[in-house]
Amino acid sequence: MNAPLPPDCLNSPWQLARRAERMNPSVIREILKVTERPGIISFAGGLPSSKTFPVAEFEAACAQVLKDDPAGALQYAASEGYAPLRQMVAEQLRTKAAAAGHTWEVDPAQVLITTGSQQGLDLVAKVLVDAGSKILVESPTYLGAVSAFIPMEPDVVSVASDDQGVDISDLRTKAAGARFLYVLPNFQNPTGNTMSEARRAALSTVAAELNLPLIEDNPYGDLWFDTPPPAPLTARNPDGCIYLGSFSKVLAPGLRLGFLVAPKAVYPKLLEAKQAADLHSPGFNQRMIAQVMQGGFLDRHVPKIRALYKAQRDAMLEALAQHFGPMPAQADAAMLDSRLTWNCPAGGMFLWARLPQGQRAVDLLPIAVEQGVAFVPGAPFYADHGDERTLRLSFVTPSVEEIHRGVAALARAMQEQAGV
Amino acid sequence: MNAPLPPDCLNSPWQLARRAERMNPSVIREILKVTERPGIISFAGGLPSSKTFPVAEFEAACAQVLKDDPAGALQYAASEGYAPLRQMVAEQLRTKAAAAGHTWEVDPAQVLITTGSQQGLDLVAKVLVDAGSKILVESPTYLGAVSAFIPMEPDVVSVASDDQGVDISDLRTKAAGARFLYVLPNFQNPTGNTMSEARRAALSTVAAELNLPLIEDNPYGDLWFDTPPPAPLTARNPDGCIYLGSFSKVLAPGLRLGFLVAPKAVYPKLLEAKQAADLHSPGFNQRMIAQVMQGGFLDRHVPKIRALYKAQRDAMLEALAQHFGPMPAQADAAMLDSRLTWNCPAGGMFLWARLPQGQRAVDLLPIAVEQGVAFVPGAPFYADHGDERTLRLSFVTPSVEEIHRGVAALARAMQEQAGV
Repeated sequence: MNAPLPPDCLNSPWQLARRAERMNPSVIREILKVTERPGIISFAGGLPSSKTFPVAEFEAACAQVLKDDPAGALQYAASEGYAPLRQMVAEQLRTKAAAAGHTWEVDPAQVLITTGSQQGLDLVAKVLVDAGSKILVESPTYLGAVSAFIPMEPDVVSVASDDQGVDISDLRTKAAGARFLYVLPNFQNPTGNTMSEARRAALSTVAAELNLPLIEDNPYGDLWFDTPPPAPLTARNPDGCIYLGSFSKVLAPGLRLGFLVAPKAVYPKLLEAKQAADLHSPGFNQRMIAQVMQGGFLDRHVPKIRALYKAQRDAMLEALAQHFGPMPAQADAAMLDSRLTWNCPAGGMFLWARLPQGQRAVDLLPIAVEQGVAFVPGAPFYADHGDERTLRLSFVTPSVEEIHRGVAALARAMQEQAGV
Repeated sequence: MNAPLPPDCLNSPWQLARRAERMNPSVIREILKVTERPGIISFAGGLPSSKTFPVAEFEAACAQVLKDDPAGALQYAASEGYAPLRQMVAEQLRTKAAAAGHTWEVDPAQVLITTGSQQGLDLVAKVLVDAGSKILVESPTYLGAVSAFIPMEPDVVSVASDDQGVDISDLRTKAAGARFLYVLPNFQNPTGNTMSEARRAALSTVAAELNLPLIEDNPYGDLWFDTPPPAPLTARNPDGCIYLGSFSKVLAPGLRLGFLVAPKAVYPKLLEAKQAADLHSPGFNQRMIAQVMQGGFLDRHVPKIRALYKAQRDAMLEALAQHFGPMPAQADAAMLDSRLTWNCPAGGMFLWARLPQGQRAVDLLPIAVEQGVAFVPGAPFYADHGDERTLRLSFVTPSVEEIHRGVAALARAMQEQAGV
C-alpha cells in the first residue's frame, strides 16, 4: 500500500517564482523565537530601548496633526513623501556633514521617504539588481539587507573587512562588474565597528576610480558616544552613492519611517519602484514625525539616547572585564584564541565578541538560554563562510542590572560548554 | 566641434536592472498633475471623500494606544501583523461570507497585514512571478496592480471582460501556463462594474478545473449602495485564491494599512517577502485601527460612507441624464455610438463612460480642463489595446453641487470638441 500524498501537495495550483526558493525565514528571527522565553535576559534582539521613545511628544503630535489638517494627514499622498519632512531630512544631513568638515548640498528633491530604511534596501535591489548580478557586501554584514536583496536573485559576494572597514585591496579584486557595494560605516550591525576616516577616504576614491556605486546604510550614525563618526561616504561623492537613513533608532521603529537620498541618475526609478510597492509611506506618521522634530527636538532628545546607551555599553564592558578578565592592551594570537574577546563600539547598539578556540556560538546558545541569557551567533551575518566563534551582544534593551546578570550567566554557560 | 555629452551621461556608475526599463511613471499620476490646477472640479482622482475619515475616533485611539502600551506600539513587531487586528479581519470576512451564504473559515494565521493593499500586490508578484511568466488581468484593470507586477517582468495578458466580469471562454483560451488571474470583482477600478453571481460561480469552477490561482482584490467591496455584492471568489475556493483587502476606503488611506489572506501553500513565502520588504507594517497604525474598530464601529460608520457615495453617484447620474439625455433602456449600436454612454455602478467610487464615435478621451481632457473639469481617460487601464473613447469618472471626491457643475463643464467640452 502506498502512503498517501499529503493533501497539501495534491493538485496545488501554486507555482512559486524561482526567487521564492532563495527566500527563507530569517535565521536571526528563528533564533529570537527560541530565546523569547519569559525571564531570559536578551542580548539578542536589535530593539531600541523603549525608554527612549518620546511618548508624550508623539501624543501631542497626533492631536496637533489631526487638528491642523486631518484631511491631508489621512488622505492618499505623494509617493516622494511629505515635503516638510523631506526638507528637514535634507537640512539635517547638510548640517551634520558640515560639522564633519564636508559640504553636502542635499536637495530635498533627492530625498525619498520610505517605509523604514528596510524598504530602501528593497527599492535599491529592484532598481539595480538583475538575476545573477554581482553585489558586494561587508563581511559580516546586516542580514536584513541580504534578505532584501535576495528576491532579485543577485550573486552576493563578501569583501573582507576588519575593524576599520572594508579591505580596499580585496575590494579591488572583487569589484569588476559589481552593481554596488553595500556598507554600514557607523556602529555596524552586527559588529559595532566604525569605518575610519582614512578608510572612508580610500574607499571613496577607489569606488570613484572603479565606477562602483556605494549603498551607504546609516541607521545608527546619530548614536555616537563620545565624538561623531567621520562624514558619510555619500557626502564625498553624492552622484556615486545612495544613502539610507532611519527614524527608528532616534524616535521609534513602530512608525516604520526611514528615507533615502539618491542621485538624479537613479531617483526617478527608485520613486517608481516606491509607488508600485506601497504608493507612499503613511502620511499621518510622516506628519507626526515632522511635528515632533520641529524646533530642534532631536538636538535635545538624541543626546539622552547616547548617554543611556553609553552607560549600558560601559556596564557591559565592565561586566565582561569582571567575568573574563580585562581585554589585554597587547596580545598575541594564541592568547586571543584562549579566551573570550570583544570590541569596544564607539556608538550604536551592538558589541561583537569571539569565543575561545574550539567553542561554537551556535552550540553555546542553548546552554546560555538554560542559564538565563540569549545572544545571536555571528555566523549567519556572513554572506559566505561565517566565523562560528563570533557572537553579537546588544547592550541597549536590558537594564544595567540585567546586563551584569546576563554576562554572569554567559560566563557560566561558557564554563559549562568548556566542561570546566 | 562636437557637442559635449550631457554631464549626467559621463561615466555614470549606475547600471539599472533590466526591470527598471519597464517601470514608468504612472500615466494616471502624470495626468493628475495636469489636472491639479486650483479651481478644477476633479472627477479624476481615486481619493475617498475626506468627510468620511473618523477624525475624532482616530484622535481618541492615538491617545488610548499610547496610554495602554506605548512600548509595544512604538517598538519593532511581528511581520505577520498585530494579532488582535488579524483576528478582527478574519472574523469580519467570515461574517460577511456567511451573510452572502458561504462558509469561509478564515484562520487569523492566514491573515497578513500589509502596508496598504498595494503592498499585497507587490508581495504576490515577488512570490509568484518569474521573468516571462504569463499573468492574466481583466480588460480594463487597475493600473496600480500592473505597476506592482511589472517589476517582476511578467507577460501581462488581458482577458476580455464585460459588465458581468471576465469572459469565461476567452479565459479558457488564455489560461494555459498562467501563474494567476488578477480580478477586482466588486465595483471595479476603473469601470465600477461588479462580477455577477453567475459569473463568479462559473469563474470559480473553471479556475479550479484549470488549476489557475485567482488573486482577488477587494478594496471597494464594503461600499455597496443597495445590496451587498455576491460572496468573494476566495470564499468559494480558499486554497486556490489570495484575497486582498484594505482599510483605505472604510477608514483612511493615510494610515497605509491593508491585508491579505493566503492559503498555507503560499503564506510562508509571502511572509518572508513581507519581512524583507519593510519588516512589518507600522504597529502604531495597526493598533490605532484595531482600537477604532472595537465594538463594531465599522457597522455604524460604513453605512454613512455608503449613503454619502450613493447620493453622489445619484447626483452624477442625474446630471449626466440632464445634459446628455437619459440612457435609453434599449438601444442599438448606432445609437450608442452617437452619444455619451455610461453605466450605473452599484457601489464603489467610479463610473465608466464612453464618448461618441470619433471622439478620443485623451483629446477631450485638455478642453475639459479649460472648461473647469478633469477626468481620467480610460485607455491606459487596458493592458493591451485600450478603448480610446472610454473615461473614468469618480463621483466621491467632489460635492453634489460640484458634480452638477462638473458634468455641465464636461458637456461644454464635448460640444467644443465636436465643433458644435
